[in-house]
Amino acid sequence: MEKFNSSITYDRHLWEADVQGSKAYSRGLEKAGLLTKAEMDQILHGLDKVAEEWAQGTFKLNPNDEDIHTANERRLKELIGETAGKLHTGRSRNDQVVTDLRLWMRQNCSTLSALLCELIRTMVDRAEAERDVLFPGYTHLQRAQPIRWSHWILSHAVALTRDSERLLEVRKRINVLPLGSGAIAGNPLGVDRELLRAELDFEAITLNSMDATSERDFVAEFLFWASLCMTHLSRMAEDLILYGTKEFSFVQLSDAYSPNISVSSTGSSLMPQKKNPDSLELIRSKAGRVFGRCAGLLMTLKGLPSTYNKDLQEDKEAVFEVSDTMSAVLQVATGVISTLQIHRENMGRALSPDMLATDLAYYLVRKGMPFRQAHEASGKAVFMAETKGVALNQLSLQELQTISPLFSGDVNHVWDYGHSVEQYEALGGTARSSVDWQIGQLRALLRAQQA
Amino acid sequence: MEKFNSSITYDRHLWEADVQGSKAYSRGLEKAGLLTKAEMDQILHGLDKVAEEWAQGTFKLNPNDEDIHTANERRLKELIGETAGKLHTGRSRNDQVVTDLRLWMRQNCSTLSALLCELIRTMVDRAEAERDVLFPGYTHLQRAQPIRWSHWILSHAVALTRDSERLLEVRKRINVLPLGSGAIAGNPLGVDRELLRAELDFEAITLNSMDATSERDFVAEFLFWASLCMTHLSRMAEDLILYGTKEFSFVQLSDAYSPNISVSSTGSSLMPQKKNPDSLELIRSKAGRVFGRCAGLLMTLKGLPSTYNKDLQEDKEAVFEVSDTMSAVLQVATGVISTLQIHRENMGRALSPDMLATDLAYYLVRKGMPFRQAHEASGKAVFMAETKGVALNQLSLQELQTISPLFSGDVNHVWDYGHSVEQYEALGGTARSSVDWQIGQLRALLRAQQA
Amino acid sequence: MEKFNSSITYDRHLWEADVQGSKAYSRGLEKAGLLTKAEMDQILHGLDKVAEEWAQGTFKLNPNDEDIHTANERRLKELIGETAGKLHTGRSRNDQVVTDLRLWMRQNCSTLSALLCELIRTMVDRAEAERDVLFPGYTHLQRAQPIRWSHWILSHAVALTRDSERLLEVRKRINVLPLGSGAIAGNPLGVDRELLRAELDFEAITLNSMDATSERDFVAEFLFWASLCMTHLSRMAEDLILYGTKEFSFVQLSDAYSPNISVSSTGSSLMPQKKNPDSLELIRSKAGRVFGRCAGLLMTLKGLPSTYNKDLQEDKEAVFEVSDTMSAVLQVATGVISTLQIHRENMGRALSPDMLATDLAYYLVRKGMPFRQAHEASGKAVFMAETKGVALNQLSLQELQTISPLFSGDVNHVWDYGHSVEQYEALGGTARSSVDWQIGQLRALLRAQQA
Amino acid sequence: MEKFNSSITYDRHLWEADVQGSKAYSRGLEKAGLLTKAEMDQILHGLDKVAEEWAQGTFKLNPNDEDIHTANERRLKELIGETAGKLHTGRSRNDQVVTDLRLWMRQNCSTLSALLCELIRTMVDRAEAERDVLFPGYTHLQRAQPIRWSHWILSHAVALTRDSERLLEVRKRINVLPLGSGAIAGNPLGVDRELLRAELDFEAITLNSMDATSERDFVAEFLFWASLCMTHLSRMAEDLILYGTKEFSFVQLSDAYSPNISVSSTGSSLMPQKKNPDSLELIRSKAGRVFGRCAGLLMTLKGLPSTYNKDLQEDKEAVFEVSDTMSAVLQVATGVISTLQIHRENMGRALSPDMLATDLAYYLVRKGMPFRQAHEASGKAVFMAETKGVALNQLSLQELQTISPLFSGDVNHVWDYGHSVEQYEALGGTARSSVDWQIGQLRALLRAQQA
Repeated sequence: MEKFNSSITYDRHLWEADVQGSKAYSRGLEKAGLLTKAEMDQILHGLDKVAEEWAQGTFKLNPNDEDIHTANERRLKELIGETAGKLHTGRSRNDQVVTDLRLWMRQNCSTLSALLCELIRTMVDRAEAERDVLFPGYTHLQRAQPIRWSHWILSHAVALTRDSERLLEVRKRINVLPLGSGAIAGNPLGVDRELLRAELDFEAITLNSMDATSERDFVAEFLFWASLCMTHLSRMAEDLILYGTKEFSFVQLSDAYSPNISVSSTGSSLMPQKKNPDSLELIRSKAGRVFGRCAGLLMTLKGLPSTYNKDLQEDKEAVFEVSDTMSAVLQVATGVISTLQIHRENMGRALSPDMLATDLAYYLVRKGMPFRQAHEASGKAVFMAETKGVALNQLSLQELQTISPLFSGDVNHVWDYGHSVEQYEALGGTARSSVDWQIGQLRALLRAQQA
Repeated sequence: MEKFNSSITYDRHLWEADVQGSKAYSRGLEKAGLLTKAEMDQILHGLDKVAEEWAQGTFKLNPNDEDIHTANERRLKELIGETAGKLHTGRSRNDQVVTDLRLWMRQNCSTLSALLCELIRTMVDRAEAERDVLFPGYTHLQRAQPIRWSHWILSHAVALTRDSERLLEVRKRINVLPLGSGAIAGNPLGVDRELLRAELDFEAITLNSMDATSERDFVAEFLFWASLCMTHLSRMAEDLILYGTKEFSFVQLSDAYSPNISVSSTGSSLMPQKKNPDSLELIRSKAGRVFGRCAGLLMTLKGLPSTYNKDLQEDKEAVFEVSDTMSAVLQVATGVISTLQIHRENMGRALSPDMLATDLAYYLVRKGMPFRQAHEASGKAVFMAETKGVALNQLSLQELQTISPLFSGDVNHVWDYGHSVEQYEALGGTARSSVDWQIGQLRALLRAQQA
Repeated sequence: MEKFNSSITYDRHLWEADVQGSKAYSRGLEKAGLLTKAEMDQILHGLDKVAEEWAQGTFKLNPNDEDIHTANERRLKELIGETAGKLHTGRSRNDQVVTDLRLWMRQNCSTLSALLCELIRTMVDRAEAERDVLFPGYTHLQRAQPIRWSHWILSHAVALTRDSERLLEVRKRINVLPLGSGAIAGNPLGVDRELLRAELDFEAITLNSMDATSERDFVAEFLFWASLCMTHLSRMAEDLILYGTKEFSFVQLSDAYSPNISVSSTGSSLMPQKKNPDSLELIRSKAGRVFGRCAGLLMTLKGLPSTYNKDLQEDKEAVFEVSDTMSAVLQVATGVISTLQIHRENMGRALSPDMLATDLAYYLVRKGMPFRQAHEASGKAVFMAETKGVALNQLSLQELQTISPLFSGDVNHVWDYGHSVEQYEALGGTARSSVDWQIGQLRALLRAQQA
Repeated sequence: MEKFNSSITYDRHLWEADVQGSKAYSRGLEKAGLLTKAEMDQILHGLDKVAEEWAQGTFKLNPNDEDIHTANERRLKELIGETAGKLHTGRSRNDQVVTDLRLWMRQNCSTLSALLCELIRTMVDRAEAERDVLFPGYTHLQRAQPIRWSHWILSHAVALTRDSERLLEVRKRINVLPLGSGAIAGNPLGVDRELLRAELDFEAITLNSMDATSERDFVAEFLFWASLCMTHLSRMAEDLILYGTKEFSFVQLSDAYSPNISVSSTGSSLMPQKKNPDSLELIRSKAGRVFGRCAGLLMTLKGLPSTYNKDLQEDKEAVFEVSDTMSAVLQVATGVISTLQIHRENMGRALSPDMLATDLAYYLVRKGMPFRQAHEASGKAVFMAETKGVALNQLSLQELQTISPLFSGDVNHVWDYGHSVEQYEALGGTARSSVDWQIGQLRALLRAQQA
C-alpha cells in the first residue's frame, strides 16, 4: 500500500519548482509577520542548499519520503532545524503541489513552444527553397490536381501554427497562481497572494480556493493540445510514409531516420534490402499514446466529488510522459523534414493530363458555359479518352468539338502543368504568388509568437 | 451503399448556412465577372426562395439529394433554371461544406455561450443571496473545514468561467473563412476571398487551401471544450447528488428535476417513497457521451492522409449531437440551481468541533509555535478527545495545557464557526469579504464576455 | 426537463422485446398464483394486440409515454382494463429494461454474426479463386517479399474470425436472464426465475439482484467487440485504398462502391476524372465513431455508485447506433470484396528481384552458412547491385562470388517468384499448400460457428 | 533518434520469454536439419547462461542493444561464437517479438487471475461471515429497500467473476503460437510449427503469417479486460468511500489503507483530524489510467496498413504498465476488504419505515389488489405520513383504512426489516437462503476456474 500511495518515483521531477514555490512562500510568511527576517533567510538559504543537492545529484531520498514535498521539507529540517517547521504555515499539500505543477508546466510549455516553432521554421524554409517543384495533389488518395510541393509542406506547417497558438493559450491558463488556497478554505494568516504572484511571476491568481486546489483543467487542456498536435503530425507522417513507398517514390528519408542494414548496428531484419520509415511510424503511433493519456485523465476526473481527492495524483505521470513524448517527436520531425530528399523527376512524372480535367472545365467556363455544364462536358472528354485508350490531352480538337463547339485551338494551353498551378492565385492557393504570401504569413506568425 | 454514403438525414441542419454561403459566393462571382448582375440577382432571389421553403417546412427532398448542398442546388435549378449551374463555379463541395459547418457552429457557439453565462449568473446570484450559510467543506469526501455555502457554489461557477473563456477561443478559430479553397488547389477564377470574408462576417481567412478543406481542428476543439465543460458539470452534479441523499440532507431538488410519484405521470417505480435526482444523474452521465464523440473524432483523424477524405464526413453528427446535449444540459443545470432548496439547519448541524482542529493549530501558531509542532499538538488534542469520547471543544483548558503550555483561556474563541471562516480573508478564501470579491470578479467577467 | 428525461424516441426499438418479456412475466405470475389463468390469458391477448399495433405501425404514442415500458403498459390498460395493473407485480423498471435490452441484443448479435460470417465466406471464396496471383507483400509499407494475393485476403479473414469468436462469447454473456431481480432486492412473490428463463430461452439467470439491474458489462463488451472489429476493417480498408491508388493500381472498386461522375446522381465534384473510394473511407472512419461510443459508456460507468442510476440510460443509444453501423459496414465490406476487380499484370509487374534478397540469404544458409553471415552477404549483394545500378538478379556469378564462394550456378533458381512463395510451406505461410490449409481451416470454423 | 527508436528500457522485461522462445526455436531448427545436435546443445547451453545472467542481475547492456532480442543474441554470440548466428535462421524479429510478448502475457494472466480469485474469495468469506447484518440498499443514491450487507458485497463479487471468466478467454487467445511466421511470408525452411507449439506449451498455432506478426487483438483485449475490471472496482471504491463518510458512517478503513497523522510518517496534511480513504481513491482513479492505455492502443491500430509497422512497438509499455497497475490494485482491494471495519449499529439505524413502502404495496397485492393500485395506495400512505410529520409505520389502522379497506391488523407485520428481506427468496434476492445460494455459486465458480 505504501508503494501504491507513493509518488516520489515520478514527482521528483518537480524538485526545482518545489524549491522555487517554497522560497516565494517563505517571503510571503515574512511579509505577513509569521517569519522573522532571520528565519526567512535561514529557510531561503536551506532551500538553496536543497536545490543544489538535487542539481548535483547528491540528494538522498529516504524510504519515508513519499513525495517530493515531504522529501524537501525533511531535508530542509535536517539542514536548518526546527525553523523548517514554520515553512508550511497556512500552506497545504493541496495548494503546494498544484503550484509546483504549474511552475513546471509553464517552463515546459516554453520549451515545447520553441521546439514547435523550430519545426515550423524548418518547414517554411524548405517550402521557400523548393517552391518550383510540382507534383500531384491528392484527395481521397486519388490524384486530383497539380500543386506545388511547397503547398503541401505549408499545408502541414499551417496546421502546426494553430497548435502553436493553442499552446500559448494553454500556457496562459497554466500561468495562474493557486498558492495561498490552503487545503480548501483559503489562507487564514494574512499572506499576501499578490506578493506570491509577483515573486513567482504568475500572470494572475486563482479566484476560489476550493476550485484552485482541485481543478486540473490546465492539465487536461495540455494533454488535449498534445493530442491534437500529434494528430497533425500523424497525418504528415502518413503522407510521407506513402510518398516514400516504392510506388510513389517522391521522397526518401535520410539514413538516420530510416535505418537499413548498412547503418543499423543490429541488422536483425530478415530482409536486407529494406529501408523502413521507422521514425515516421513512431511519430504516427505516438498520437495514440498521447491521446490515451488525455482520455485517461478525463475519465479520472468524471464525476469526482469537488475539491481535492487522491484521484488527482494521476495528473503528473500523464504530464511528464506526454511532455517527454512531445519533445522527442518534435525534434525527430524537425530532423526528418530537414534531411528529407525529394525526387523531383518522379514527382513530375506523376502528373498526368487527366489531372487537368477541372482546368478543361474552367476553359469552357471562361468561354461562357455554366460550370455545371462545363463540368459535365469535361467528364465526357475524360470518358472519351478512356474509351479510346488515350491520354486526355491527346483527344483531337475535332473530337473535343463533338462534345462542345466552344473548344478551339487555344485548348492546348490547358495541358501545361505550370500554367495550371498559376491559375490558383486567390489567397491560400497554389500559385507562386500565393505560396509566397503563405510563407510571409507564417514567418510573421513565428516572429509574433516568439515576441 | 447509397444510404451508407448519404448525409442528408443530418446535414439538413445546415440549410441556412448553405444558403448564406451560396449567396456570398454568388456575390464573389459577380465581382469577378463570372456572373452578370442580373444572373446574380436571379441566383440570390432563388436562394431566398429555397431558404423560405426550408423555414416554412415546405422544402421537399428528392431521393437523389444525397446531401444538403446538392438538395439546395437542385432546387435552385428547378426555380431559376440553368443559371443555377453557374453558382458552383470554382467552388468545390470540399470548401462549401466546411464553410457551412463553420457558419453553423459560429452561431451555435453564441447560443451556447449565452446559456453558459446564464448558468453562471444564476449561480452567482444564488451565491450572493446565501452568503451567510455555513456548512462543511469536504476533501476526500471527509469533513474538512467550515466554509460558506456560497464558496462552494462559486467554486463551480469559477470552473465554468474557464469554459466560457475557452468557448470564445474556440469560436475565434471557427470564425475563419475557408471558402475559395476549391477542392485542394485554391480558387482559379479571381474570386476575392476578402470580399467573401466580409460578406460572411468572418474574422480572417484560411491560409492554405489543402489545409482549409481538410482540417477539423475547430470541430475537435469544440468537442473537447464540451467534454471539459461536462466534466465540470459532472462534478457539480455528483456533489449535489450526495448533498441530496438522506445522509447529507443539505439540499432538495425541486419536483420538476426529481420526479416522484405525485408529479410523475408514469408512476412506474416500485418504490413510492423515492425521489430520485434524475436530472443530476443525466447531467453526470452525459459527460461520457460527449467525451465519446471527441474520442471518436480524434481516432477518425489519426493517421488520415492529408486533404479531404470521406472519413471527415463523421464530423457533423458529432457536432450536432454534442451541441444539442450541451444546450439541454446547460438549461437543466440552470433550472436545477435556481430551484434548489437548501436545508440550512442540517448544514449547520453538520459542523463539528473536530473540523476546527486546523484552527486550533493556527491558534498555537499565532502564539509563536512553528506550524509543524502546532499541527502535531492539535493532532494530540484530537486523539485525546477521541480517547475520552468527547468533542474536541470539550477538552478542558487543563487538558489542553498538558499538550502545550501555550493554551490559555482565549482558546474558547476557536470554537466559533463564524469566526473560523472569517479568518480566510486572503483572496479566494471563504471569508465574507473574499466571497464578495469573488462575486465581483465573476460579475465583471460576465459583463466582459458579453460585450 | 421532460424531454431531457424521456427515452421513448429511441427505446421504442425495444417494443418487441418488451412485449416478449411481459408475456413471460405474466406466465410467471400465473404460476406463482398472482394471476388467475383467465387474467393471464387476458394479458397475453392484450400484449399480442399491442405487438400487432407496433408491427403494423398503428401504435399511437401519448405525450406522457416517457419510455417504451410505460407506453406498452398504458396501451395494455386501454385494451384490457384494470387487469393490466397486475402485470408489473414484483417487477421494476430496473429489471424490465435490462431484460428487454438483453433480448434485443441477443437477436441483434445473431444478425451481426450472420453478416460477419457472410463477409468471411466471401473473402475465403475469393481467396480460393485467386490463389495463383502473386504480388508484393509489404511491411512498413515497403515491398518486402512476394506473396500470394490470397494470402493477403486470408490475413484479413483470419482477423475477422477472431471477431466472430468473440461475438459468440459476448452473446453468451448477454444471454442471461435478469428478470425477477426487482428494483434492487429481488422478487418477493415466489416468481420462479427458472420458469422465466425457460420461457425466454435464456441460458442462465443472473446471480445477484443488485448487480443484475445495474451492470452493463454486456453492453461495454459489445461496444468493444465492435470497436476491435472496426479496427480490423479499418486496416483492410486502408490497404485497399492504397492498392487502389494510381501508384499501386492493384485493385479497382466497382462503380457502386466508388462513385464517379457517370454513376453519381449529383456530380458535384470539381474533378470529373476522379473515382474516390468512398465506401472504404467510410468504413475506415466508422472505427472512430464506434470506439467513441465504447469510450463514452466506460466513462459514464466509471465511479458510478452501485445499483441503478439514471446514468445507465446512456446505454441504449450507444447500442442502437453501433448495431446499425456494424450492420451497414459489414454489408458494404462484403459488397466491396465481392465486386472488387484486381489487376493481375500490375501485381506481377510490382515484383522485383530485390524482394528476393532474403531468399538469396536462404540460398547461402542451405549451403551451410550461418544465417547472420548469409544475411550480411545478401546485404552486400543488394548494395553491390544498387551501386552498379542493376537489378539484384543481374549481378553475375563472378560478382556474387566476390561476396561468397558458396554462390554457384544454381543461384539462378532464386530469381523465380513462383519458386520463392512455394518455399513457405510451414503452416500459415504463403505456399499454395499452406494457403489451401488456411482455406480449409476457415471453412471449418465457419461451419462450426453456424452450428 | 536512436533513443526514440530504442525499446530496451522496457522490453527487457521480456528477457525470460525471449530465452524460452529461442530455446524452442533452436530445437525446431535442429529437427529441421538446420542445426546439428552439437550446435543446438551449444546454443541451448549459451541461452541458459544468458538467462542466468539476467536472473542474477549481471547481464550487461551494450549501448547498441536497441531491444531485448538483439541484446540476448549479441550476448549469446560473445558466449558461444559464430554458431549463435544460426539461431535466427528463418526467424524474424516480427515473429520473435510477438512470441515473447505472448509468453510473457500468458504468465502474467495466470498471476492476475490468481490475485483476482483471491479478492473474490475474500469477499465471499466476508459475505458469509456477516450475513445477518442489514442496511439500506440504495438506488439513485436514495434509500430504497432494506438488504443484507452480504448482498451488497456479493453484488460486487459477482461482477468480478465475469472479469475472471473474461480473463480466461483472453488468455486462451493469447495462448496461440505465432513463431514460424517469419517477417510476413512464413517459414521457408521446414521448421515444424507443431513442434514449436508443443515445446512452448501453446494451445494452438496462428493461421496466417501476415496476420500473426501484426495483429495485436490479444493486447487490446487484455487492456479492455483491465478497463472493465477497473470500472467495477471504481464503483465498489465509490460505494465504500461514501459508506465511510461521516454522514453514512457504515464502514471504516483500517489505518493501513487510510493514513492519518498517527500512522503517516509525513503528517503533512493541514487537518490533523482527517482520515482520508487514499487507497480507495487511488483504485477509483486508476480506472482512467488503464482505460487510457486501451484507448491509446486502439487509436494507434486504427487505419494502420496491414502487417508489421513500427507503430506496433507501442504495445509493450501499455501491457507492462497495466499489468503492474492491476496487480497492485487487486492486492490493495483485497487488503481493504479483509481489514474493513463495519458499524452494524449505524447500518441498522439507517433503516427507516418509508423504505418499506413497497412492502406495504405488496401487503395489498397479497390481499388481492392489482399492483398498480396497491402502489398508488402505498404512495398515498407515504404522502399522508409526510403531511402529518410521522413515520410511515405510525399511521393508525384507521388512517390506513381511509386509503384502502383492505388494510387490517396484520399490517403490523410489514414493519419488520428482518421480515422484509426474507421475502426476497427468488434466486438472486436478498433473503438468507438466496444469499447462501449465491455464496455457493461463487465458491463453485472459484473452484472451477482454478481447476
